Amino acid sequence: MANQDDQFKKVTSHAKEYGYVFQSSEIYDGLSAVYDYAQNGVELKKNIRNYWWKAMVQMNDNIVGLDSAIFMHPTTWKASGHVDAFNDPLIDNKDSKKRYRADVLIEDYCAKIETKIEKEVKKAEKRFGEAFNKEEFISTNGRVVGYQEKINAILSRMGKSLENEDLADVKALIEELEIACPLSGSKNWTDVKQFNLMFGTKLGASAETAMDLYLRPETAQGIFVNFLNVQKTGRMKIPFGIAQTGKAFRNEIVARQFIFRMREFEQMEMQFFIKPGTQKEWYEHWKETRLKWHLSLGMGADNYRFHDHEKLAHYADAAADIEFKFPFGFKELEGIHSRTDFDLSQHEKFSGKKLQYFDHEENKSYVPYVLETSIGLDRMFLAVFSNALQEEELENGTTRTVLKLPSVLAPVKAAILPLVKKDGLPEVAKEILEDLKWDFNVIYDEKDAVGRRYRRQDANGTPFCITVDHDTLEDQSVTIRHRDSMAQERVKISDLRNIIKSEVEVCNWLRKMQ
Amino acid sequence: MANQDDQFKKVTSHAKEYGYVFQSSEIYDGLSAVYDYAQNGVELKKNIRNYWWKAMVQMNDNIVGLDSAIFMHPTTWKASGHVDAFNDPLIDNKDSKKRYRADVLIEDYCAKIETKIEKEVKKAEKRFGEAFNKEEFISTNGRVVGYQEKINAILSRMGKSLENEDLADVKALIEELEIACPLSGSKNWTDVKQFNLMFGTKLGASAETAMDLYLRPETAQGIFVNFLNVQKTGRMKIPFGIAQTGKAFRNEIVARQFIFRMREFEQMEMQFFIKPGTQKEWYEHWKETRLKWHLSLGMGADNYRFHDHEKLAHYADAAADIEFKFPFGFKELEGIHSRTDFDLSQHEKFSGKKLQYFDHEENKSYVPYVLETSIGLDRMFLAVFSNALQEEELENGTTRTVLKLPSVLAPVKAAILPLVKKDGLPEVAKEILEDLKWDFNVIYDEKDAVGRRYRRQDANGTPFCITVDHDTLEDQSVTIRHRDSMAQERVKISDLRNIIKSEVEVCNWLRKMQ
Repeated sequence: MANQDDQFKKVTSHAKEYGYVFQSSEIYDGLSAVYDYAQNGVELKKNIRNYWWKAMVQMNDNIVGLDSAIFMHPTTWKASGHVDAFNDPLIDNKDSKKRYRADVLIEDYCAKIETKIEKEVKKAEKRFGEAFNKEEFISTNGRVVGYQEKINAILSRMGKSLENEDLADVKALIEELEIACPLSGSKNWTDVKQFNLMFGTKLGASAETAMDLYLRPETAQGIFVNFLNVQKTGRMKIPFGIAQTGKAFRNEIVARQFIFRMREFEQMEMQFFIKPGTQKEWYEHWKETRLKWHLSLGMGADNYRFHDHEKLAHYADAAADIEFKFPFGFKELEGIHSRTDFDLSQHEKFSGKKLQYFDHEENKSYVPYVLETSIGLDRMFLAVFSNALQEEELENGTTRTVLKLPSVLAPVKAAILPLVKKDGLPEVAKEILEDLKWDFNVIYDEKDAVGRRYRRQDANGTPFCITVDHDTLEDQSVTIRHRDSMAQERVKISDLRNIIKSEVEVCNWLRKMQ
Repeated sequence: MANQDDQFKKVTSHAKEYGYVFQSSEIYDGLSAVYDYAQNGVELKKNIRNYWWKAMVQMNDNIVGLDSAIFMHPTTWKASGHVDAFNDPLIDNKDSKKRYRADVLIEDYCAKIETKIEKEVKKAEKRFGEAFNKEEFISTNGRVVGYQEKINAILSRMGKSLENEDLADVKALIEELEIACPLSGSKNWTDVKQFNLMFGTKLGASAETAMDLYLRPETAQGIFVNFLNVQKTGRMKIPFGIAQTGKAFRNEIVARQFIFRMREFEQMEMQFFIKPGTQKEWYEHWKETRLKWHLSLGMGADNYRFHDHEKLAHYADAAADIEFKFPFGFKELEGIHSRTDFDLSQHEKFSGKKLQYFDHEENKSYVPYVLETSIGLDRMFLAVFSNALQEEELENGTTRTVLKLPSVLAPVKAAILPLVKKDGLPEVAKEILEDLKWDFNVIYDEKDAVGRRYRRQDANGTPFCITVDHDTLEDQSVTIRHRDSMAQERVKISDLRNIIKSEVEVCNWLRKMQ
């Protein structure tokens, strides 16, 4: 746990130091759970977005894009269920005046029992040594089994109460467990209340004529309301998909873990419209295809796993997460959801407009089923960034900090370095810069010894350093250094463009999906 | 005027019909002054954004990017002056209950007088024929001079009253001019009141603890509050710039002209930080550079003009617009503003943090001056789209609708068309598609006669049609047809990639800026 925390602290401080992520409005002491992407972060984010877009829209003849507005007609959110059901159960402590998510208080309580189990396991491990069988111990040791049963009973009761909207019982549970406010230690709680997570605002000039709007809590509904317009003007035939990236907003009470859960965040969603009855095969297809996309980035197959949902949302008949091993453990990175015809049918009902597709093969109209893939761009950023950040011990005993970003995603593709700041080397380096910048994000750096510049570019995530030395003036060659292997080779200046291109081009990486 | 309206109607209906722009939430009867970008629109918008980003960030060593959040600490907007001064003067008609911008009512009144001048001019033109000298007539004809003097007097009084916040006089002016509500015809007006244009929302769970937030009305402030973090972590030396694109929101009362003025819109802004005293030269530099960027797209030099501001905003010591000839006349497309040290100084004052740069050459610290370039992405979209849409008379007497988008910006670069739907031609066409899609957005179309498909792609803005015919099976060649000239040539399949690339690559277009 301590190691995880340390590693995560390194991630956040490196993200700031190297211009990837800043706390929002830092000069005003920040805005909680809101972050700004800095000069390198904006490029990494753009490159991830572009990598997704190319894989989804450009490579698939039957998927097109969309960019719907953040503002939507408010009835949209009645139809989608967000007005009525997009809630967190909140509870206030009367003494500290601090507000909590009731379910999180209970989950944190269970996590403490979990720690007790871990302690028992460690003790037994010490006692039995090599002979210790962890699984057997957990399933037979009386004390551990008791703890586990207690956790299960608590979570099961909470789940049922929340499902039945029995908020009084959620409060009763908190009181029975004698959960105290972490801040004040007091057990003096208010009732549990549902709190809607959508941000509201008002459109129009006067209080009387203003319209209550919400900032969209997901991008998906922008796709659903445009489904028929896209299908008709784009002459799309089922199966087809609509993809979009864009901001969404949720008034999270407990927002934490850096950019993992933010109040303002960006989604990359694709809704795939299919014939009813074919959802199982498309569900499997998109699970597989999306995992392939992740694996094409070469971040290690062991870092991904599927988590199939047992409890399904009201709109879904199957759902799975692709989980990634973040510094704080395996967590959801992307969701694949079989949404049935729930959304389109709801919009039919609330708008009074038909949202049906006429299937020429079947010679009939129907409301299509929908298969959704939904990934958080900021989460993907965190996955890529935290996985890339490494401390390496070198042969000479020193260590280096290196950000091993997939080169297709790296903000800066190459740094051009004159070995020394004289003898005409800067001029040659700048000529190379001027030439390469038409095709790549490249930078020039002449400050400090070249070894130090290499380290700086390692930490910055730059895949290539190109060094101009005195021989360059004679042989029109330079030294190219590879970030990950630190290998150096001598190449012709005229070959640089192709060498870099073959390593960083999106299409070369996407080919790995096949 | 009628022609302008017609042309503009064609623009909006073509934008919908060909999947460029849809009314937001159309199935719920729309949301006023909010639009969604459809399958082609999203690509055009992305391509414009990318063209700007490359020109600004990738091509300039001393400009870096940023992606700051829409949510910012609310004090930001006190410091920037938006809380106190970002207002529209509104007035209600008591009978119709309809709300108007008071300044717009007065301006519309003046526009009617302007129409009278035009009538006089036309009458005289008819009477004098060839001998008619318009300028002389306008400056000497008693009636016309009277009209013009009246307009000047009205606008000058309104300007002064607004500047002095003398809203009672603005109302008095409306009453003196006997301006009636266009809806009810009534002259029964309320007082004029200032109305803030920022959208508000609340962050946090309870009414007591909630923080009042605003949706940012401009992206610029996100750059200013991050200025020092970017400068330090990016090791930037003055002069340097920070560029960003992103959404901004304004609760416009009179939002009209399609996507020209929306409540939710996207800006592309660059703030250039300079040494105090150098602002004049940088102002000229950026005026010139930004115009070159526009001209590189080849949309006609006559369609642009500079408009230097005489009346300056409180933060500026010089300002100019690049105006574009929209279907409804010359209007602001981009602004170049010399903002002095106003913003950074205000943020110093309100945050209590030093926002200064240490200049090693001068050996002293100072608050930099700022030169801003600010362009509306949606306006740029409208400029490109409306300029591209043309009805052409062909030699054979028919007409065609063609969307002559600069090929670098076109959503789809090429359509691959089998001449007929048999004899193995579709298979060859699809092979070409599979090959080219790694590099470009390409589509396949086999429906209808090939001439009709050409027309469809013309209207869609696709620069190239590639037709596979029976000879292709023998000679591995295809016919490539150019959208604008309609010229056709026979080329090898293996040459297609390079032919398209040389026409659509961003760097080839940016070279025209030099």
